[in-house]
Amino acid sequence: MKVAIVGATGYGGAELIRLLNHHPEAEIVTLHSSSQQGLKYSESYPHLHDIWNDNLVDINPEEMAKKVDLVFLATPSGISSKLTPQLKEQGLKVIDLSGDLRLKNSEDYERWYKKDAAPNEILEEAVYGLPEWFKEEIQNAEILANPGCYPTAVTLGLAPLLQQDLIALDTLIIDAKSGVSGAGRSPSAATHFAELNDNFKIYKVNQHQHIPEIEQTLRRWNEAVQPITFSTHLVPMTRGIMATMYAKAKSEFSTEQLLEIYYEAYHEKPFVRVRPKGVFPSTKEVYGSNYCDIGLAYDERTGRITVVSVIDNLVKGAAGQAIQNFNIMMGLDERTGLNFIPVYP
Amino acid sequence: MKVAIVGATGYGGAELIRLLNHHPEAEIVTLHSSSQQGLKYSESYPHLHDIWNDNLVDINPEEMAKKVDLVFLATPSGISSKLTPQLKEQGLKVIDLSGDLRLKNSEDYERWYKKDAAPNEILEEAVYGLPEWFKEEIQNAEILANPGCYPTAVTLGLAPLLQQDLIALDTLIIDAKSGVSGAGRSPSAATHFAELNDNFKIYKVNQHQHIPEIEQTLRRWNEAVQPITFSTHLVPMTRGIMATMYAKAKSEFSTEQLLEIYYEAYHEKPFVRVRPKGVFPSTKEVYGSNYCDIGLAYDERTGRITVVSVIDNLVKGAAGQAIQNFNIMMGLDERTGLNFIPVYP
Amino acid sequence: MKVAIVGATGYGGAELIRLLNHHPEAEIVTLHSSSQQGLKYSESYPHLHDIWNDNLVDINPEEMAKKVDLVFLATPSGISSKLTPQLKEQGLKVIDLSGDLRLKNSEDYERWYKKDAAPNEILEEAVYGLPEWFKEEIQNAEILANPGCYPTAVTLGLAPLLQQDLIALDTLIIDAKSGVSGAGRSPSAATHFAELNDNFKIYKVNQHQHIPEIEQTLRRWNEAVQPITFSTHLVPMTRGIMATMYAKAKSEFSTEQLLEIYYEAYHEKPFVRVRPKGVFPSTKEVYGSNYCDIGLAYDERTGRITVVSVIDNLVKGAAGQAIQNFNIMMGLDERTGLNFIPVYP
Amino acid sequence: MKVAIVGATGYGGAELIRLLNHHPEAEIVTLHSSSQQGLKYSESYPHLHDIWNDNLVDINPEEMAKKVDLVFLATPSGISSKLTPQLKEQGLKVIDLSGDLRLKNSEDYERWYKKDAAPNEILEEAVYGLPEWFKEEIQNAEILANPGCYPTAVTLGLAPLLQQDLIALDTLIIDAKSGVSGAGRSPSAATHFAELNDNFKIYKVNQHQHIPEIEQTLRRWNEAVQPITFSTHLVPMTRGIMATMYAKAKSEFSTEQLLEIYYEAYHEKPFVRVRPKGVFPSTKEVYGSNYCDIGLAYDERTGRITVVSVIDNLVKGAAGQAIQNFNIMMGLDERTGLNFIPVYP
Repeated sequence: MKVAIVGATGYGGAELIRLLNHHPEAEIVTLHSSSQQGLKYSESYPHLHDIWNDNLVDINPEEMAKKVDLVFLATPSGISSKLTPQLKEQGLKVIDLSGDLRLKNSEDYERWYKKDAAPNEILEEAVYGLPEWFKEEIQNAEILANPGCYPTAVTLGLAPLLQQDLIALDTLIIDAKSGVSGAGRSPSAATHFAELNDNFKIYKVNQHQHIPEIEQTLRRWNEAVQPITFSTHLVPMTRGIMATMYAKAKSEFSTEQLLEIYYEAYHEKPFVRVRPKGVFPSTKEVYGSNYCDIGLAYDERTGRITVVSVIDNLVKGAAGQAIQNFNIMMGLDERTGLNFIPVYP
Repeated sequence: MKVAIVGATGYGGAELIRLLNHHPEAEIVTLHSSSQQGLKYSESYPHLHDIWNDNLVDINPEEMAKKVDLVFLATPSGISSKLTPQLKEQGLKVIDLSGDLRLKNSEDYERWYKKDAAPNEILEEAVYGLPEWFKEEIQNAEILANPGCYPTAVTLGLAPLLQQDLIALDTLIIDAKSGVSGAGRSPSAATHFAELNDNFKIYKVNQHQHIPEIEQTLRRWNEAVQPITFSTHLVPMTRGIMATMYAKAKSEFSTEQLLEIYYEAYHEKPFVRVRPKGVFPSTKEVYGSNYCDIGLAYDERTGRITVVSVIDNLVKGAAGQAIQNFNIMMGLDERTGLNFIPVYP
Repeated sequence: MKVAIVGATGYGGAELIRLLNHHPEAEIVTLHSSSQQGLKYSESYPHLHDIWNDNLVDINPEEMAKKVDLVFLATPSGISSKLTPQLKEQGLKVIDLSGDLRLKNSEDYERWYKKDAAPNEILEEAVYGLPEWFKEEIQNAEILANPGCYPTAVTLGLAPLLQQDLIALDTLIIDAKSGVSGAGRSPSAATHFAELNDNFKIYKVNQHQHIPEIEQTLRRWNEAVQPITFSTHLVPMTRGIMATMYAKAKSEFSTEQLLEIYYEAYHEKPFVRVRPKGVFPSTKEVYGSNYCDIGLAYDERTGRITVVSVIDNLVKGAAGQAIQNFNIMMGLDERTGLNFIPVYP
Repeated sequence: MKVAIVGATGYGGAELIRLLNHHPEAEIVTLHSSSQQGLKYSESYPHLHDIWNDNLVDINPEEMAKKVDLVFLATPSGISSKLTPQLKEQGLKVIDLSGDLRLKNSEDYERWYKKDAAPNEILEEAVYGLPEWFKEEIQNAEILANPGCYPTAVTLGLAPLLQQDLIALDTLIIDAKSGVSGAGRSPSAATHFAELNDNFKIYKVNQHQHIPEIEQTLRRWNEAVQPITFSTHLVPMTRGIMATMYAKAKSEFSTEQLLEIYYEAYHEKPFVRVRPKGVFPSTKEVYGSNYCDIGLAYDERTGRITVVSVIDNLVKGAAGQAIQNFNIMMGLDERTGLNFIPVYP
């Protein structure tokens, strides 16, 4: 299977290369960039010295169609909305890591992203690639919208509660924390080392563009889901997301009962690990891997459930999940090329 | 004013020395330790080389009473419950930075701390030293219970909402994050560098001993406060606490209206700074200082208020607030010796 | 004494404000910026919210002369070479924190900085402000060149060896390490959090512009000093410099003998602390303070001396030393306003 | 090929598991620990939840010989000196990651490690496993001493200079820096997060136990090598070593000429990457991989060569190199199971 990567200069693109290098069935043919075409890629990413020696190539759908079967788009928002129709026209399959194709309602996209939405027929065709829950649709997808990093952690953490209608919907609070690689590779005051190191920040309060994506997925499980409260914080670390989620249980539970429900929901999903009672995952425990680890507790004092979900934002939150979707689209075992043990410590 | 510090080998004790060094009215006479008496203090803390050249002294209330007027206890929990009665007997005033004297109900202490509580007459006499709201009581205190780090950030952040009955009490969620110095100076697997660096953890879910302390203070403002949901996370940084707090508003607000209420509540409190609309504090912005900075927003989509409160856990969350209380007890301006600008970056 | 700060938006400028705030004799009247005039300063530095409420002012030497006696220049290189003559013309004293006025030989400046040098009469007049060794000149200075961060750590560490001719000059190696705040506040790929965190880099090998500055100072003590080998590394931390320095001793020593020489050299210098045998300083032990801490050892196996010198690059390496020079220029005790205990941990 | 790991609770052991998991020819049969036998291993390392579900087993050479062919010893110093003879007696091959079997001279071991040395016949038999230079010996080894982390970075960086006699031997200085995982997993004041974060330390000045190991290897290439000056520093990061090395060239060179010599020396060694002129590696560029990356420069001003060598201390500095040696001992391609791309960022 031959693939190309567009937007290879970002962290999502670099992570695709790291992971696909181990993939027995996929071969990266070309790396593309609109801004840095012609540059030797390993000058931008010296960790690939002697590993990837080619230059970045410009983006020409017609030429790409001659060489590859599928294109990974690891571009900033606002690119794949325009590029996907051109790639589709050339008969190319697309896996889009950006937010452009995730929201079914183009008004939502324009409100939260403040950019023009992709054409409606593309939005309708695009399959939202959360493999643990939408595997059948993914199997037939030709255009795949890879979920956002936060939405992956959040929806995997909440799925059993919503699917089985266990919580009072108006009590849901999601407090999420991310490492700084999630902000991308473009330098800015907000990602300047001396401003972030030994510091902890909150950002985009009530305004994060992942809010409508989370709501859209939750509503597939329960239409009555109300507008959610979702906060995002920046942790002085490179990789990792933790979502801490709170909701009132509809009835009394024990932590054991809830864990049983989660084990049941996830024991056949190879990349979701549910932790035993009293144990909660930390972000480093999934570092560099495609796992989403979940811990939870029921508090008898308050009647509230706390669910903790962690991922590596560049793997399960981006490139790893994209490859998991690629595997499913191609009829491969979804674990192909993704059986990395987390890098610890 | 002559003072002694007991428990000088911990971070709270070291921070008292840093801050009192600038205090024009207080003089540290002796540093005490039960475990390391006789040790030259600057061998334990080389940043004090040539600044504090004396040795650590053992703890003898009778001898201490001959030399000082007041004792700061910066000890682990379980010490001041026993030591405070002895110091009181010698006529010494006490400011206790540990959790031993904060909870009025000794059963609460024993349940959450799993240790024997202090005698009831001590618990009754001890004044809870949150200077922004209990200044009058502090003025007459002889035994002062200095608030915990998390409770300081949380209660300052929530006070106006509860005092003015603005939120639905059963909707309150507190998601708190702390730097690692809050865990003290004793080495452990949980504070080992390679386990924490580039990592983000949740700990003591539903079990943190600051839960009853927060509830006790909130109930002084509104007796109907229910058991709270309070989570604590460890951030890979040295100093700083952020509490992100969520609650449904009882009626519709604008962010401006809420900020106005907070400005009104705090504009005469020198160490609380309320940020303008759209701006939220980060922990580094109070690093090394006695400030508590607060930002907030009302979300029209959800009807929820998000309040963000940050402190330096070792200053406003420990030694700085202890000195602020000392100032009030001694009839000084509460800012005396505490007018540090945060260290940034 | 009324002062102005030009280049207030950089870290050196912000640190001058933090430190001068405690200075009993200096008053900051205005903050100046060429790029951000009109901006409310605390919007750029929110840690100064409610502390410094004024806007940034443009740079007009004539107007400045009406209001202040002395100007601190905390500008990037290439500014004060042009601005200092104008300020001098208005009768203003100048303390320049940039590299523009440090090198006596304008060809050296142009070679290493790749910019036009300041006029020769300015370079001749400018006094190099290393207070521990050039105090008398500083007392009469009207234009002061504040030393670079690396040169401060290096020359204080080496002074006794060179002044007393104890080492073979052609064996001197300086391996220096710095926190990232030394790179300034402008975002760049080189200071992007995700590129630096959990990473250690070497930069500007054999090309750092502090090389001629160090050589110039060392040659004041020993004209025979040869071109030095000086390497700089970036440490994933915010503040702090360590210089590890190696040289062959001219004759056999014991570590004790060398320490005695250093104690003798520095015991009357309030900001240099020499550590006892077997103890070496770490950068955090001077964090936020104006200290330079030094440790050393003589190795009998190799005949080499290792000297370790640490400073806070923003304090003794910039703003703190500038104030120390200010004190001396103004006839004050050099410690005035600088008696901060390091912030630890 | 069936293997066992002794000392699995340390970071070296955990890294062996991560890497061997991808090895097509090796199978880990049992994990052993003297201190924590019986413990479920993934309780100690939750990142292995659902991946390694077995318990730790005690150390019984006779039992081990029934199940495996080779034992990796990832134990602290002082263990394998005693255990290796017992394993050998059972016919087991040994790869020892500790320092016990590296020094041929048992007096050196006892002087620098302050422990009893292994029996001389074991020391004589043990092959020092630096695969780039001693591959032939390794092919026939039954007892393999895996090099230390610092010695790996240092000797790979210096090999061409010494083998080709290009430097003045008495001018060699090695300034090395390491991430904190090198200090192991046992908590201590020296590895306490709040003491190390945002801090930079030097340690074991002139006393590091890797000094005789480095000298021993260098003397295989040039007997005249004199006692070296070797300093070690602790960087606030988890993984990575950089060695910055300085020496006077015996004659004049250009940087290009030296790079040519290094390319020649290493172009057939798959895990050593020499960087082009003007480019130096940073530690993150080899993170999680078995690469040793090298950059260098010749300084015409001083006649000195600067060589910079970086490795991941847990991979090329421990577990990865052990597997590279395993591959060679077993007659496999040395890259087998080690073709990981570095994790970046």
